[in-house]
Amino acid sequence: MNNRDLKRRLYIIIFRSDTPNGKLFDVVLLWAIVLSVVLIVAESMKGLPPIMKTVFMVSEYVFTFFFTLEYICRLYCSPHPKHYALSFFGIVDLVSTLPLYIGWIFGPMRYLMIVRTFRLIRVFRVFKLFSFLEEGDMLMRSLLASSRKILVFFLFVVIMVISLGTVMYMVEGNVEGTPFTDIPTSIYWAVVTMTTVGYGDIAPVTPIGRLLSAIVMLMGYTILAVPTGIVSAQFIYDREKLRVPKRKCPECGNSVTAKAHYCSFCGKEL
Amino acid sequence: MNNRDLKRRLYIIIFRSDTPNGKLFDVVLLWAIVLSVVLIVAESMKGLPPIMKTVFMVSEYVFTFFFTLEYICRLYCSPHPKHYALSFFGIVDLVSTLPLYIGWIFGPMRYLMIVRTFRLIRVFRVFKLFSFLEEGDMLMRSLLASSRKILVFFLFVVIMVISLGTVMYMVEGNVEGTPFTDIPTSIYWAVVTMTTVGYGDIAPVTPIGRLLSAIVMLMGYTILAVPTGIVSAQFIYDREKLRVPKRKCPECGNSVTAKAHYCSFCGKEL
Amino acid sequence: MNNRDLKRRLYIIIFRSDTPNGKLFDVVLLWAIVLSVVLIVAESMKGLPPIMKTVFMVSEYVFTFFFTLEYICRLYCSPHPKHYALSFFGIVDLVSTLPLYIGWIFGPMRYLMIVRTFRLIRVFRVFKLFSFLEEGDMLMRSLLASSRKILVFFLFVVIMVISLGTVMYMVEGNVEGTPFTDIPTSIYWAVVTMTTVGYGDIAPVTPIGRLLSAIVMLMGYTILAVPTGIVSAQFIYDREKLRVPKRKCPECGNSVTAKAHYCSFCGKEL
Amino acid sequence: MNNRDLKRRLYIIIFRSDTPNGKLFDVVLLWAIVLSVVLIVAESMKGLPPIMKTVFMVSEYVFTFFFTLEYICRLYCSPHPKHYALSFFGIVDLVSTLPLYIGWIFGPMRYLMIVRTFRLIRVFRVFKLFSFLEEGDMLMRSLLASSRKILVFFLFVVIMVISLGTVMYMVEGNVEGTPFTDIPTSIYWAVVTMTTVGYGDIAPVTPIGRLLSAIVMLMGYTILAVPTGIVSAQFIYDREKLRVPKRKCPECGNSVTAKAHYCSFCGKEL
Repeated sequence: MNNRDLKRRLYIIIFRSDTPNGKLFDVVLLWAIVLSVVLIVAESMKGLPPIMKTVFMVSEYVFTFFFTLEYICRLYCSPHPKHYALSFFGIVDLVSTLPLYIGWIFGPMRYLMIVRTFRLIRVFRVFKLFSFLEEGDMLMRSLLASSRKILVFFLFVVIMVISLGTVMYMVEGNVEGTPFTDIPTSIYWAVVTMTTVGYGDIAPVTPIGRLLSAIVMLMGYTILAVPTGIVSAQFIYDREKLRVPKRKCPECGNSVTAKAHYCSFCGKEL
Repeated sequence: MNNRDLKRRLYIIIFRSDTPNGKLFDVVLLWAIVLSVVLIVAESMKGLPPIMKTVFMVSEYVFTFFFTLEYICRLYCSPHPKHYALSFFGIVDLVSTLPLYIGWIFGPMRYLMIVRTFRLIRVFRVFKLFSFLEEGDMLMRSLLASSRKILVFFLFVVIMVISLGTVMYMVEGNVEGTPFTDIPTSIYWAVVTMTTVGYGDIAPVTPIGRLLSAIVMLMGYTILAVPTGIVSAQFIYDREKLRVPKRKCPECGNSVTAKAHYCSFCGKEL
Repeated sequence: MNNRDLKRRLYIIIFRSDTPNGKLFDVVLLWAIVLSVVLIVAESMKGLPPIMKTVFMVSEYVFTFFFTLEYICRLYCSPHPKHYALSFFGIVDLVSTLPLYIGWIFGPMRYLMIVRTFRLIRVFRVFKLFSFLEEGDMLMRSLLASSRKILVFFLFVVIMVISLGTVMYMVEGNVEGTPFTDIPTSIYWAVVTMTTVGYGDIAPVTPIGRLLSAIVMLMGYTILAVPTGIVSAQFIYDREKLRVPKRKCPECGNSVTAKAHYCSFCGKEL
Repeated sequence: MNNRDLKRRLYIIIFRSDTPNGKLFDVVLLWAIVLSVVLIVAESMKGLPPIMKTVFMVSEYVFTFFFTLEYICRLYCSPHPKHYALSFFGIVDLVSTLPLYIGWIFGPMRYLMIVRTFRLIRVFRVFKLFSFLEEGDMLMRSLLASSRKILVFFLFVVIMVISLGTVMYMVEGNVEGTPFTDIPTSIYWAVVTMTTVGYGDIAPVTPIGRLLSAIVMLMGYTILAVPTGIVSAQFIYDREKLRVPKRKCPECGNSVTAKAHYCSFCGKEL
């Protein structure tokens, strides 16, 4: 088997999933990702026996080695290695193996903690599942199509939250033992309140403060309707577009509604 | 009255509700279910007089006996007993009688507690109501039709929640007296925050943690719009489809509303 | 001025608002209602000077006298007094004057408290505003049209909440110092959680309890989409119905879509 | 360069952004606004070194001077100075410079605090961004178009909240150590609960209180669907209207899409 054949074989196994081997590889990879995520989560729990700590450490090395090998194989067998390396999944694949190596260079003790931050991105590999699900693509496209509207909405929410947080600091900031200690904290309160999360760690105690926050809540209530409206309208629009039955004009090839008697582009009787 | 007649009579009373006796049976059954559920709920309350405990115990036996008898009758008179036994309601009917008997075998003391867990499924009998309500069926069908989209959305939410929980553990996990004691707890916090429930038992205290959770909240705010958009679009789509039933004109081939007496395009009598 | 004239004049002033006097009466009435509500709310506040208490007491008598007089006038001048007395607003008008009189009969001390409960219904007079607002009518009709679907949805939510509350009691009820003291409390927790209110007075502490409540939250998240979807679909449906342009068939008088070439009822060419 | 030329040049730089200088000015202005907002927020934090306080003070003077100069320039070069001064942004521009000057007149010590309240309106300058974003305009128009419906809805919510708050005060107000100390507090609780914010600082403790608030939550759950439904229906309606621009065929009178070259009903060239 020459080099080219190996490359093509590896490519079919690693990048595609329409052969038995390709499918097996993808399933094994997904289970490995899930297992490694479970291990990262479990490792953080206090009061584990020392033997478990060792097991976690070893499995961490094994998984990282496996993912590194996989990354190198992908680079090797990809027809456009540079294109892959710079794609979303290429970067995620790389970044999900790095934390352990960074831990080696900068010392294992303190920095192991930071290592985990990056390692969690390995979770995003699971995104690969999405490419098989047409529905996910449709949702993504709908959300992207309305992303400009959502951005404008967010800008508006940020302005509201800064303004209302500052007003609330004016009203409640002078009360003794107030949780509204400064404007950033008050802005955090405004976000917690407008999104209807409402932890309750910061809550108004003066009558004016309560009146103001009641108004903020009712505003948040209505404003909550805006992103939902945007997304709903987009979903319905995208669905309608698919539904309206079309047919091709035999003369000019343009698509016209099925109900038309004449082509609206060339005038041919249909 | 021979065996076959009895079976048919029982079948009409128990499985159908279009005769006076059949209706009476269903109403009695429903009240028995509601009452038994109320008793289970009431039994759990502390500080009840001992006489009440006895009343609850006895009524528990009476209801379980009644439901067991009903289950046996259903099995007996059903034309396809196996089919019934394996249907959703067949399993629910069986499981809602079992806990008491399981309590006999494994000893009454410790296991009575676990018994109740299963007994609550008796609640689902009330679902039988739904089969009479066309609206419920319609809602169910709409939700099922969009279940794949909702599943993809859930996968996305699970990935987000694990990632954000881990990042939050990195940020707040080192603060003294932090409620973010491990990653599972932090993931729980992420779920509580993204769904805008916001208990407040776990809340960030550092400025970076608060900034991060403000971003999580605003994200959750927008993400909340997605399932609503999916369900709204599905409801609107299903309504449209039902609303204007169409048929083809045999003369000109155009689709006209089913109510039309004459084709609105060529005037042919339909 | 004879009796009949007086009746007609009173009727125009009290029941209608298309004359200057009728409008003035309605405006005065509305301000009186708002003021009396503000007084009820203010009266409950602790630490008021005794003089204020007296003012509140007197104004309470004045308002009740005014509203009683108004109710008698409405009964007197209405062309169908019985019809009015049994209408929604007739009952609200009566009930909003009763609490003070009930307080007289059953003694002023302890029962004054209960009196207030009923007095708050006076607030509903403000609903009269709605009859002037076409938009309110439209919203009401849309909500009524989808009330059956919402009812089925509520039955489902009640079943879910009882089931999940009981399961949670099983999981967390044995932990020392648990807030899940009995099943009713656990059901209350399930409602607080599924509606995403999340007070945090009752929150799980065990890992299994937290996992379970995370699932409850994510379910509540999706279930929240159902009433929104129902109401959105109804609003859009009602809007569409108004929008589709129609014209009357000159032959049979049925309304057909403006696009039709032939009447779909009688076949006449349009 | 004469006076008129200067005016026209200034106008192009300050009011418009389609020339390099005009764009530069807008970008600098926006950064100045963001920076000044960040400074106001940062200034409120406790434990800052005295040197920072001085830096904040000086930068506050610099920014106010810059914004005052900008306001004067706008007044000077605007073709209709009165029109500008009375427009939304004219008022915001003026008010965002005033607080510092008001601080001079009424003494710098105590009133500096109040000064900040007004200063935060400077944030609204960022709204100018919106005029460039067609999407923002569309959202605004949609919200304005449904503002009457939302107002009616708000009136309904206010009535509900006052009623439910009073009932809750009746139920929980007599319990020792209750947080429902008076009706205004109870109304605040009703707002917190119906909007699903749920701080938990005020929560029922009696079984009846909890039952009542469970009902309030489930009502709030459904009522939350109303503004979302209103906004969604409006967005979808506005989209539909924009999506398929129509014109009438001069030959047959049918409405065809504006893009059509030929009528799809009679084939006439358009």
